[in-house]
Amino acid sequence: MKHESVNLQNSIDRLDTPWSPRVVASLNDYQVKVARLEGDFVWHRHTDTDELFLCLDGELEIEFRDGSVKLREGELYVVRRGVEHRPRAQETCHILIIEPAGVVNTGDRPGPLTAPVDKPI
Amino acid sequence: MKHESVNLQNSIDRLDTPWSPRVVASLNDYQVKVARLEGDFVWHRHTDTDELFLCLDGELEIEFRDGSVKLREGELYVVRRGVEHRPRAQETCHILIIEPAGVVNTGDRPGPLTAPVDKPI
Repeated sequence: MKHESVNLQNSIDRLDTPWSPRVVASLNDYQVKVARLEGDFVWHRHTDTDELFLCLDGELEIEFRDGSVKLREGELYVVRRGVEHRPRAQETCHILIIEPAGVVNTGDRPGPLTAPVDKPI
Repeated sequence: MKHESVNLQNSIDRLDTPWSPRVVASLNDYQVKVARLEGDFVWHRHTDTDELFLCLDGELEIEFRDGSVKLREGELYVVRRGVEHRPRAQETCHILIIEPAGVVNTGDRPGPLTAPVDKPI
């Protein structure tokens, strides 16, 4: 049987729309996604789940109401469920996201940046 | 509030024992671990869960009874629950593992390489 790995750089190269995560693998009922970030996202929260961000290149800032965290390549942060946050990327940035299937990228704040849910790469 | 990221290289630098995953973050009831691999692990399976491997440096081979997959830096693979596998690293290799809390590294094959469960870095 052919066992195929996922090459994250190849996955990133196939991304087009910023802020639109694409699924590259599943892990039980969780999904592994990659996304291209550019500029400011919207303030939102996920009331049912934590959300893992791993920076693959560039620099991601996640703002909170009480502070912020910056992620560079090889750095990760888990946003806790219910915590309001806003991702921002001054330059283009690529990230890996891991969270349960079915999570809407804009959480409790649907709008123009709401992306298709669980869309494969 | 201080929001602290996890730097994977710093975490790797603190690893001592090969084949002994250390927890660097949690994601709901899942854990994010790093591990140093050297040589051959044991054939085993996890009957209750998938297991995500992301190669951070070096080269990891995961053998299956019907084939194998090689992971280099930036490549990931999810071993499905119940699938017998054996990780191998001819040279030193560092990986990120994501799986539910409580998973024993040697699965159904406890032995000399069985590591402490859910041990923090």
